[in-house]
Amino acid sequence: MLKLNPHLSVDCVIFGFDGQNLKALLTKRNIPDPENANKFITDYKLPGDFITDEEDLQTAANRILKELTGLTNIFLKQLWVFGSPRRINKERDINWLRETTGLPIERVVTIAYYSLIKIAESQQENANINNALWIKVEEISELAFDHFEILQRGLKTLRTRLQIEPVGFELLPRQFTLRQLQNLYEVILGRELDNRNFRKKILKAEYLVATDDKEKEVAHKPARLFMFDKDIYEKSEMRDLGFQF
Amino acid sequence: MLKLNPHLSVDCVIFGFDGQNLKALLTKRNIPDPENANKFITDYKLPGDFITDEEDLQTAANRILKELTGLTNIFLKQLWVFGSPRRINKERDINWLRETTGLPIERVVTIAYYSLIKIAESQQENANINNALWIKVEEISELAFDHFEILQRGLKTLRTRLQIEPVGFELLPRQFTLRQLQNLYEVILGRELDNRNFRKKILKAEYLVATDDKEKEVAHKPARLFMFDKDIYEKSEMRDLGFQF
Repeated sequence: MLKLNPHLSVDCVIFGFDGQNLKALLTKRNIPDPENANKFITDYKLPGDFITDEEDLQTAANRILKELTGLTNIFLKQLWVFGSPRRINKERDINWLRETTGLPIERVVTIAYYSLIKIAESQQENANINNALWIKVEEISELAFDHFEILQRGLKTLRTRLQIEPVGFELLPRQFTLRQLQNLYEVILGRELDNRNFRKKILKAEYLVATDDKEKEVAHKPARLFMFDKDIYEKSEMRDLGFQF
Repeated sequence: MLKLNPHLSVDCVIFGFDGQNLKALLTKRNIPDPENANKFITDYKLPGDFITDEEDLQTAANRILKELTGLTNIFLKQLWVFGSPRRINKERDINWLRETTGLPIERVVTIAYYSLIKIAESQQENANINNALWIKVEEISELAFDHFEILQRGLKTLRTRLQIEPVGFELLPRQFTLRQLQNLYEVILGRELDNRNFRKKILKAEYLVATDDKEKEVAHKPARLFMFDKDIYEKSEMRDLGFQF
């Protein structure tokens, strides 16, 4: 039996994109209503867990990701550490932690990770077993603990990285149209982009490669499919940032 | 009396620049030689401490920084969390922690911060009291615990940020010559840069402002002094990264 460390947890902001919307995978809690013993309150939290005594932080985050999506070898990065002594300040959250883990919970520092996955590749049954749902990021206005703050930081980091690295490709299918790519940029940045300007800039990236294939089964004129070439990216000048000397 | 949390520490990579060399502030330890009871072994570690039960992580890092340098309101950012269950694997390190703190030390997760300071502004007496010394980064080849790995990550992050943000200015005096600025870039990047190319690129930055002043008391022809304008930087287009839409 693995021993959980009651001082340290890992929480994961798992972003996914369904072609239209940026979503986050959240787990649903049913907790007793303190004002009515027969009722439950439903709320949502980021997927997370305490780490075991023998586990690396990244291993713990990967374990959670696999449990909820069935996926391994996924884009997963440290986001930030949330360590305020008052970060778990609601009695119902402390009670819930104590009851579900049986641990003597006091202060918990959480190491937040963020992950980018292709929703279509994740296993829906894994999500179901764990009471996890994909929810549109724009519709999330509150979460348990300080998880809304963690989600906001994940979003901010995703926006910044999108401008440095082609992280967006992690969220798209292997082949995609420029329209899908632009949709992705628009939902992450939270605003519409000018079509011409977007295409002009993005096509400068040598690692964005046109294929000979086109979209299938669409009502409009089928658009060309592109893909992301990791080899070219890794050698590419486009990785250069503002001041590359 | 503040109660220290034996599970969580903060370690600081404090970078400084003396005009010629990139340095890190290290604290010296004298620990008993396990092979000779009358002798001590001297080694170095990053400045750090356990956090208190009531303290934010950033507050703990600021506390350490102030103790060692006398400085407050300094560039200080989360670097990475080091949480491997085997990160404190030398018996002498575990013993040292137990003896100096009186705490039941088992696994310790450390949140690493990095800081950029102007050595000339830091208080040498604070360093002296704490057995801290400025050591050239290029001369550091080993440190206690996993601190050498933490230092290396700090260096890598500093190199990356140098290409995105003008972090280097935190390390220079208020006014500086282009030669000093180039020196700084060269020591952080660990290689010589072409003078003409460097000046051409760096002078594109609108927030690098020429003053009317020149160097004083130098043997060669005095060079113009520049300064960094934070207001211009904050509004500047130069903050744009690769893909700004």
